Amino acid sequence: MTGQTLAELGEHALIYLIQGSLGESDYVLIGSGDDAAHVATADGTYLVSTDLLIEGQHFRKDWSSAEDIGRKAVAVNLSDINAMGGVATALTVGLAAPGDTPVAWIRELLAGMIAECAKVGAKIVGGDLSSAETIILSITAMGDAERPVSRAGASAGDVVAVVGELGMAGAGFGALSRGFRSPKAAVDRHRVPEPPYAEGPQAAEAGATALIDVSDGLLADLGHIARASNVAIDLASEAFEIPEAVQTVASALGGVDPLQVVLSGGDDYALVGTFPVGAVPAGGRTIGAVTAGEGVTVDGQPFEGVQGHTHWG
Amino acid sequence: MTGQTLAELGEHALIYLIQGSLGESDYVLIGSGDDAAHVATADGTYLVSTDLLIEGQHFRKDWSSAEDIGRKAVAVNLSDINAMGGVATALTVGLAAPGDTPVAWIRELLAGMIAECAKVGAKIVGGDLSSAETIILSITAMGDAERPVSRAGASAGDVVAVVGELGMAGAGFGALSRGFRSPKAAVDRHRVPEPPYAEGPQAAEAGATALIDVSDGLLADLGHIARASNVAIDLASEAFEIPEAVQTVASALGGVDPLQVVLSGGDDYALVGTFPVGAVPAGGRTIGAVTAGEGVTVDGQPFEGVQGHTHWG
Repeated sequence: MTGQTLAELGEHALIYLIQGSLGESDYVLIGSGDDAAHVATADGTYLVSTDLLIEGQHFRKDWSSAEDIGRKAVAVNLSDINAMGGVATALTVGLAAPGDTPVAWIRELLAGMIAECAKVGAKIVGGDLSSAETIILSITAMGDAERPVSRAGASAGDVVAVVGELGMAGAGFGALSRGFRSPKAAVDRHRVPEPPYAEGPQAAEAGATALIDVSDGLLADLGHIARASNVAIDLASEAFEIPEAVQTVASALGGVDPLQVVLSGGDDYALVGTFPVGAVPAGGRTIGAVTAGEGVTVDGQPFEGVQGHTHWG
Repeated sequence: MTGQTLAELGEHALIYLIQGSLGESDYVLIGSGDDAAHVATADGTYLVSTDLLIEGQHFRKDWSSAEDIGRKAVAVNLSDINAMGGVATALTVGLAAPGDTPVAWIRELLAGMIAECAKVGAKIVGGDLSSAETIILSITAMGDAERPVSRAGASAGDVVAVVGELGMAGAGFGALSRGFRSPKAAVDRHRVPEPPYAEGPQAAEAGATALIDVSDGLLADLGHIARASNVAIDLASEAFEIPEAVQTVASALGGVDPLQVVLSGGDDYALVGTFPVGAVPAGGRTIGAVTAGEGVTVDGQPFEGVQGHTHWG
């Protein structure tokens, strides 16, 4: 095994390898493996989550404006705090860029970051700058939650509900990948997600038993809840609305099932959770049920052909 | 100015541009511009600091082992918390690497990180993985302090004291840059700094009025304290010991003043602070005094030829 590479090992196995070595501490109330960690201080607690965004991997300057990239970089981090039922208050930003980057581009990037932070009242409290051959953004968001909701609390008998649209960002990515700039609603959503920031704390207050944001794709992310909670989840296909833009892109791509885009498209940053029957908050669409067992099914069957995105193939 | 680039603007001006746009919040007790930020939660406070380390910019795989790179990446972050008088408790790690990176290399990197964390009892609580063309490490450290000490509290009449050796990492860098692997003590110190972790909280308890870690070089870092505190600092050249390894490297390089290596070498992660007379804790070496005015001098004179490291020239 000495010569094994990351590409051969794969991202999931690498995550398990890392998580298995981290150890425990009285300070770590919820550790690695959830949307955010929950950490104790001498006098209280906070949530923290981090994301790395690399030009070419996570965004393209020819697809998105600097402002859009800044908004998205912050949004994906605020979404992680939201998906714990919390509200982000502070962010740190690591930024690396080539020396020939226009200052105007960086100003726009920063303006996008600050505008997205303003949606929840968060502030950038520190950072680090470096030169690099491409743009690299590393953001860490911290926040508060009255009752942090992990991925691990779902139990048989709960219902599954989602807030926000699904499949739009995936459809936008599909369109951009093939050189299109429309449908605009889908392309815009890929460029800048709009996480439902009010609904994370609302879901926690309503009694959510597990929460996650849809970054890898709904089935993949519900798989994370099912695994962490030791339950099975079954979705009802008729509960899903297929947005028009998703239908348009699926037709244009030829033979793609629009439901697959909805169920497996990433980067929407909708909020999905499990709730006791009757506790789904207003605005939540019920899409399935939690049962004993394992895995995620649609109408009682495995959904074919769906893979979450992973790094190193 | 529309066409101006980062290289033309320079790192310091970019920092001012960014800091000027961040705004204030009740949550931000100490914001961007110190070793770490001090942030309020609903029920308490914490310190947070972030550093980006990029292969080729901050480390080289042919100069340092994976374990050394992991230790250093964590050490520079723990040092920032230490330099606020705090103790780090939790870290997040962003890691990007090429797919052909050996898993064994990542295991060693992680072992180095965990070993350095263990020195202060901190744990890695979360992270993010990505593929990239070079190794990128983004670490954020959080911690507690009973009394956070910023850069801004020095006042005329205080004395300046340092804990830890100076110039060793700079000498090590000088040696490695010219293809040498010795003197070992200096090269080792460049590869893995040894921040005085016990002394940050001790200095705060002893009454330190300002603290900083020596990352950019002593004169540059004391310049940060002088500017933030609106004071002048004068160092006494006879107060400095020149380590033997620094003398060796300075001679080998031909005509380099070893005192310059001590005063301007970066990456030592010694701790320097200002204290009321009589309050310097055991282990601290008094090297100068705080007076009214501005700037940093040595024996009453500007020290020639010293520049801190900046990105984008």
